Formats: sequence, structure tokens, C-alpha cells
Amino acid sequence: MGKIICFPTLSEEQQQRIQQAAPGYTIQIGKAKDLDPAELKKAEIILGWSSLIREHVLNEDSPLKWIQVWSAGVDHLPMEDLQHKQIQITSANGVHAIPITEIILGMMLSHSRWLRQAMLYQHQAEWKAPGKALPELHGKTAVIVGVGEIGTETARILKALGMHTVGVRRSGKDVPNIDTMYDMSGLHEALRQGDYVINILPLTDETRHIYNQNTFDQFKTGACFVNVGRGPSVETEAMLDALRSGKLAFAALDVFEEEPLPSDHPLWAMDNVLITPHIAGSTEQYTERALDIFIKNLEAYVAGKTLPLNLVDYSHKY
Amino acid sequence: MGKIICFPTLSEEQQQRIQQAAPGYTIQIGKAKDLDPAELKKAEIILGWSSLIREHVLNEDSPLKWIQVWSAGVDHLPMEDLQHKQIQITSANGVHAIPITEIILGMMLSHSRWLRQAMLYQHQAEWKAPGKALPELHGKTAVIVGVGEIGTETARILKALGMHTVGVRRSGKDVPNIDTMYDMSGLHEALRQGDYVINILPLTDETRHIYNQNTFDQFKTGACFVNVGRGPSVETEAMLDALRSGKLAFAALDVFEEEPLPSDHPLWAMDNVLITPHIAGSTEQYTERALDIFIKNLEAYVAGKTLPLNLVDYSHKY
Repeated sequence: MGKIICFPTLSEEQQQRIQQAAPGYTIQIGKAKDLDPAELKKAEIILGWSSLIREHVLNEDSPLKWIQVWSAGVDHLPMEDLQHKQIQITSANGVHAIPITEIILGMMLSHSRWLRQAMLYQHQAEWKAPGKALPELHGKTAVIVGVGEIGTETARILKALGMHTVGVRRSGKDVPNIDTMYDMSGLHEALRQGDYVINILPLTDETRHIYNQNTFDQFKTGACFVNVGRGPSVETEAMLDALRSGKLAFAALDVFEEEPLPSDHPLWAMDNVLITPHIAGSTEQYTERALDIFIKNLEAYVAGKTLPLNLVDYSHKY
Repeated sequence: MGKIICFPTLSEEQQQRIQQAAPGYTIQIGKAKDLDPAELKKAEIILGWSSLIREHVLNEDSPLKWIQVWSAGVDHLPMEDLQHKQIQITSANGVHAIPITEIILGMMLSHSRWLRQAMLYQHQAEWKAPGKALPELHGKTAVIVGVGEIGTETARILKALGMHTVGVRRSGKDVPNIDTMYDMSGLHEALRQGDYVINILPLTDETRHIYNQNTFDQFKTGACFVNVGRGPSVETEAMLDALRSGKLAFAALDVFEEEPLPSDHPLWAMDNVLITPHIAGSTEQYTERALDIFIKNLEAYVAGKTLPLNLVDYSHKY
């Protein structure tokens, strides 16, 4: 029978859920670096991904049929090789809707409600009020670029807070709680409206460096930029210019062109930047939610049916 | 005709709104310290309050009939003297629902989503991830103590984020989006349920030091405490003990027993405390919203009707 190899750490109970969904399969759990290549070569299904396993699972006679990645993005996978071998890929897309919506909101409020600045004064034991009245999110406009499951959830919360919502997505199709939706050709028109611009785009050839100087020029002066999508969607030098000129009043960044962000990078020291170390998507609930997706797909796979959740379209690469 | 004295800074347009609502009245705008006591003594209506004016407006033959304070609380007013003279007091209650809900949310997320900690590492240019998976607000329980207009709005947003909501209020009456409501006798039972405890109580004889050692003992170990109500509702030493013992994982504090918080106070240096300098209620929209309340009351006053908005009940002192 087939072999399932799992890279994420799973509890005994979680391993049993997998075994119950695929009774005849052998399940092996371990870190990519610790597993015997001879075993990796036998994998029919892989849960997770590591560049270390590439040569072992992509050789010609590998039985590999399906990779359920543990992330929303698949930009770290060798897509051409996988497509060539007609391997199905499913993502953990949707797992991130709640955690990323919460961090987006926290990032926006850390700036608008002066919490970042207050922390700096706290460090100096200084009771210091803002020099002017603070803005509210209420009544302001948020532009969500890349409206999938995360953006839809984010829009729902921002609407509840009384914001005006503008969305940009490939299809241009409406979703609830986005007041005005554009397709990618309307990106600039959308950006011009934003007090807050929130990037949640996946990384593809189309979205690489989509935030360049020309793009930042479209932003409202004094806009805030939140990037919880992918670092290489942004031309970092152009963003630095926008932050230095005041075009951007604030950027909250969870992702970067180079990760970890090098310790001598100018972004670290900018007082209008909030840096988090690529933690937006991960919370205590992650494993359980991602496993729910895998189990549903696994049950279909074993029954010989189409994988129902998050099957990656090779033509779009997400 | 009567005289209206206004302490808040108002635009030309805002002054005209007042004049239009009370055509025969003389309107005088200025800081309390700059105004001629002879003029203060003629005030029939005062917008705002200052301890500097007490002796001038409370003398026996003062024509003062009504004070529209510019804050939600009235604990800074000489209530006994005002009651003795049967002066009506109206508050700016309700003006704070949106700004305070936003800061509460920002404070909660600054902790749960590791933004405070990330800022400290950013200061050192250090790419450092949390040691363990982060919690979500989703699925957790928030206890809102003092459910008026602010708490009702806060509950609405916290429910939208998938939290369980528990409320405590004097009347014990239900409000939308609070799953379980208690009257004050249920305070301890409510507190025991809270992952987050949010204090929005007004300051009265009943609520002074309502958070004492016995109260903190009721908290869940590891709970987070947010105080955007009044500082003297908390016995500071008891809170310090709870923060040091780990009973409280985190406190976000906008108000303090002594304000400004003295520069040698131990709270400043605690790494599980976020301090803001009593700024929760004030945003760009404050003046316009507070003026809306005053104008509605003023129109009724001029027409000889009961003041419709936020008339303070001397028996409750809020």
C-alpha cells in the first residue's frame, strides 16, 4: 500500500485522524532532514514541503501523486517539475483567514491609536500625549489587494468597524463586504482611494514587484501600507523612498524580499515601520485547521475522487 | 439674555451651530484660566468644566443652570455643590463608543499578536519569532465590566471577531452581542470566565477600588486586563502583585490612580504592561460628536424641554 510522509509535528490523536481517513496507508512523521531518503522515495502523498526532499521525490520512478502543503502559498515549490510529473498540489489556503485578519487589524490600530509611539515613551517612563487628535479607522477607506479567503474575512471585520472597503482581485468578482471591487487593471484606481492599503496577494510572475515606484506614486499621501502577503511583491527600495518622503505615513511588514531581514537593513531603524518576523499566519489553531483540510482531501483521494479543497491551478500558480 | 461659556476650542462653523440653536444667547469661548471671573459669574450654561471656575460659578446668586461636560465621566466635578444648587449636568457619554472600542481592540491585539514584543526586537534589529504558537482572539472570552454605550459597541466588534462575550452592568439588563450579562453581584462569577477583562466602569463610590486583591484572585490565571475606564477603580498595588505573580499575563492601561503616572512608578518598566497616557477617548471626531450632543440638548433647553441626552442622575453620579 501507499506511503504518507508528514513533516509537520502532529499529536498522537492527529496522526490517528490521518490513519482513520486512509486505513491501508503507512504514515511516517518526521523532519525532512531526519528522514531516510530511501523512505522519502516511496512517498505517494506528502504533507508539507522541504527543498531537501526535492531530488528524492521527483525522480522518474517516484510514486508521488499529491503534495498537501502546509502553507497558503506554493511559491516555494518547484512548480515546473511538479507540473511535468502531473503531481497534484493542494494548499492550506483558508487556514489563515482568522489569524491574518487579526494581525492586520492589530497592525492598523497599533499605528492609528498611537500604541507604537506610546510604547517608545513607556520605555523612557515618559507620560507624553500625542501632539494632535488621533485618527479613527471608522470612516476611513481600506484597499484590500488580493481578495481571497483572508481578504473576505478582513473586509467583514473592517466593515463592522465602519470602514469603507475597496478590493482588487484577479477575477474582479464581487464578494460580500467589499464596497467596490476592481480586477487587476483597476489596481491604480483602487490604490488612490486608500487610507490603508493591505497586500494579501500570492507571489506569482504577475505579482512580483507589483509595488514599485510607479505603484507607490498612486498612493494617497499619508497612506498606511500593510504587507502580510509576500515580500517579493514589493520593490523594497521604492517602498523605502515612499516611507522617507512621507508618501507612506506608516508600513507594517510581516514579509520581506529577503528573509530574515538582514540586521543592517534600513527598515529596522525607521520609526514609521513596524516589523514582524513572518508570523502573521501562524497561531495555536493552525495545525488543527490545516489538518482539517488535509483530512477532507485525503478522504476524497482514497475514494478516488477529485481533491475538493485548494487544488492548485498550474496556470495561475496558486 | 443668557450667557453660554465654552471651554473647548471650536471652529467658527461650530460656534455658529451653537448660536443658531440658541439665538438670543451670548456665547463666549475661551480657556478657563483666561476668562474674566466677572464674565464667568454670568454663565447660565457652561460647555466643559475646570476646577478653576468653581468659586465663580457656584456662588449663591450665580445664574448657572446647566453644565454640558466635555467628557463621559463627571467624577471630576463638585457633585454635592452642584446638586445643592440643582444644576443639571449632561455628559458627552456615547462620544467614546467608537474611539474606545478601537483602542481596546488595538491593545488586545498588540499583546495577542506579539506586536509589542516584535517592536522591542525591531529596536535591536533582531529577527526573532515567538517561542510558541500565538493565541487568537477568536474563540476566547472577553468580560466587559461596565456595559454602557462603549461596552455595547465593543461587544459588537468582539462578537464579529468570534469571541464569547460576558458583560457586567448595574442593571444586569441584556444588550445585543453580550452572550451572558450579570449585575454587579455577579462580578466575580463573570471575571472567572475572562481571557480578557475590559474595565469601562465609571468612577463612583461603588466602583472605587473595585479591582482589589480579592477581585484579581478571581481572574483566570494568565488573563489580560484592559483598563480604559478610570484609574481609581483599581487598587494599583493589588494589580502590580497580579502582574508580578503571573495571575495577569498582561495589562493595557490608559488610566491610573495618579495621573500623570509618576516617572518612578514600577508599572513603566514592566514588560507585560502597555501604558497609554489617558488618550483612549480622544480622536479627530471628538469635538464634532460632542457638539452634536450639546446642540441637541441646547435646542431642548431653549424650548423649555427636558435635556434629552446624558442627563446625569445625582443618585448614581454618572
